[in-house]
Amino acid sequence: MIDVCLLGTGGMMPLPNRFLTSLYVRTNGRALLVDCGEGTQTAIRAANLRFKPIQTLLLTHYHADHVSGLPGLLLTLGNEDRRMPLDMYGPPGLARVVNALSVIVPELPYGINCHEISGKAEFEASGLQVTAFEADHGMPCLSYAFNLPRPGKFDVEKARAAGVPLQLWGRLQNGESVQGFTPAQVLGAPRRGLRLVYSTDTRPLPEAITQGQEADLMILEGMFGGSEKDERALLTHHSTMNESARLAREAHAKRLWFTHFSPANPHPEEYAQEVEEVFPGAVISTDGQKLTLRFENE
Amino acid sequence: MIDVCLLGTGGMMPLPNRFLTSLYVRTNGRALLVDCGEGTQTAIRAANLRFKPIQTLLLTHYHADHVSGLPGLLLTLGNEDRRMPLDMYGPPGLARVVNALSVIVPELPYGINCHEISGKAEFEASGLQVTAFEADHGMPCLSYAFNLPRPGKFDVEKARAAGVPLQLWGRLQNGESVQGFTPAQVLGAPRRGLRLVYSTDTRPLPEAITQGQEADLMILEGMFGGSEKDERALLTHHSTMNESARLAREAHAKRLWFTHFSPANPHPEEYAQEVEEVFPGAVISTDGQKLTLRFENE
Repeated sequence: MIDVCLLGTGGMMPLPNRFLTSLYVRTNGRALLVDCGEGTQTAIRAANLRFKPIQTLLLTHYHADHVSGLPGLLLTLGNEDRRMPLDMYGPPGLARVVNALSVIVPELPYGINCHEISGKAEFEASGLQVTAFEADHGMPCLSYAFNLPRPGKFDVEKARAAGVPLQLWGRLQNGESVQGFTPAQVLGAPRRGLRLVYSTDTRPLPEAITQGQEADLMILEGMFGGSEKDERALLTHHSTMNESARLAREAHAKRLWFTHFSPANPHPEEYAQEVEEVFPGAVISTDGQKLTLRFENE
Repeated sequence: MIDVCLLGTGGMMPLPNRFLTSLYVRTNGRALLVDCGEGTQTAIRAANLRFKPIQTLLLTHYHADHVSGLPGLLLTLGNEDRRMPLDMYGPPGLARVVNALSVIVPELPYGINCHEISGKAEFEASGLQVTAFEADHGMPCLSYAFNLPRPGKFDVEKARAAGVPLQLWGRLQNGESVQGFTPAQVLGAPRRGLRLVYSTDTRPLPEAITQGQEADLMILEGMFGGSEKDERALLTHHSTMNESARLAREAHAKRLWFTHFSPANPHPEEYAQEVEEVFPGAVISTDGQKLTLRFENE
């Protein structure tokens, strides 16, 4: 399962009643964070989440509202006496940005590994398979898809036929190869895993439709409200809620959450009915919104 | 008069119910800000204060909790279409810190003037006479005293005796020299002005006692609670509330506000009685606390 918490839902600047957009994703006790604007560490505390499990910080891009909370987060991680290195991913320029912002961060007790991504990349982070893909924001910007694979069911007949000793079953079931035996010898066909897509600060992306195929959850940009803002969204390289809703519908996503609302859009819930017609059940997110994604029939 | 708002009262890191320590001071429509940690722009909004009047930003030092909100503040000032330059003051290193943090701040529509202060300095900012003096924080760190002078009363006899034409009285009274006449020719002796001292992140300072002589308000550090924390305060170059209370008493300050509470001190009000014995009426500040300082008999 994957625990998802949308720490904030704002874009551009933090407001007294709206944290900047950031996502906390946790699976099997390991967590990752997407973006870290001013106030994100406060949002983590407000959502009663912990700093220690955070192994990875993914940045979409380097506009201040997505990264200005970095110095504070790094220090707070350090204050928890962290030794485990922090893996950071983002578009080219990451090391430069981290170094510059570290001017106010004295020596940390842990290391930071910066991974700069040009174009598309696949990697593993905090126990999830991550795909980073290019967004369309008028500057280097990434969207992210997360996949938690689900192995096949344990097949007792198969295990017996292969002559696997009983005491190895558990480790093979957990994906380990032991004494010449492989998990494939005891497991059925892989089952449907869990899929989560996070794409903000972008024009609607064809690749997001591909990545979001039947996703369990898509978290998409709601910077602007209805179609009267189409032109403004085009001009500023953002999306309207209608555009994002159409994208999620084309992807046949199971759930859609909107986030990254403009400060000029203090009541995004007013658009709920309009987007409901495009994507039934679409959620106008609120800060700290949580959901646990579970495997089918689990 | 001077309007004072203590935007936040925390030290070290922002908390869901406590902004980082920062001070907003306004007189005659011009404002200055002391320190700008993560969340200060949100605290300004929460206190219903405006960004436009801010002409000056004074920094005490460059620990992240005092400066991490700078990129966001600079951008928010820019979003208000500001053209007026921002004057910044701080210990040596200011330009380096501002430049580094600006890595996430694209071109701004206004200029920034950095004034680096070594030791003691006197200057005018946002309509106030400011004295910056060295704090004792184990690194370059400043405390600030603010003075709003009050000219003498208009003296009709004196003005007539000097032969000042009636139509010039108003401008002379406002401090302007006109047609060879000077304000001194129409005004009585200068009267007691207003005085405000801000000193946090420091061991108790003899100079703060000097600067705070009969101050209308001293805002001092309450990082640690009672005297059981004396050693810890010494070690970390901070002050306990008791130490600050004694300092304000020695200065014969009229009012004392505590701020910059440690995250490990979630209920500083528990020390109220203890400090009351040292400085009656001392205030355990809360976020957004406001006061208007007025001239005597105004």
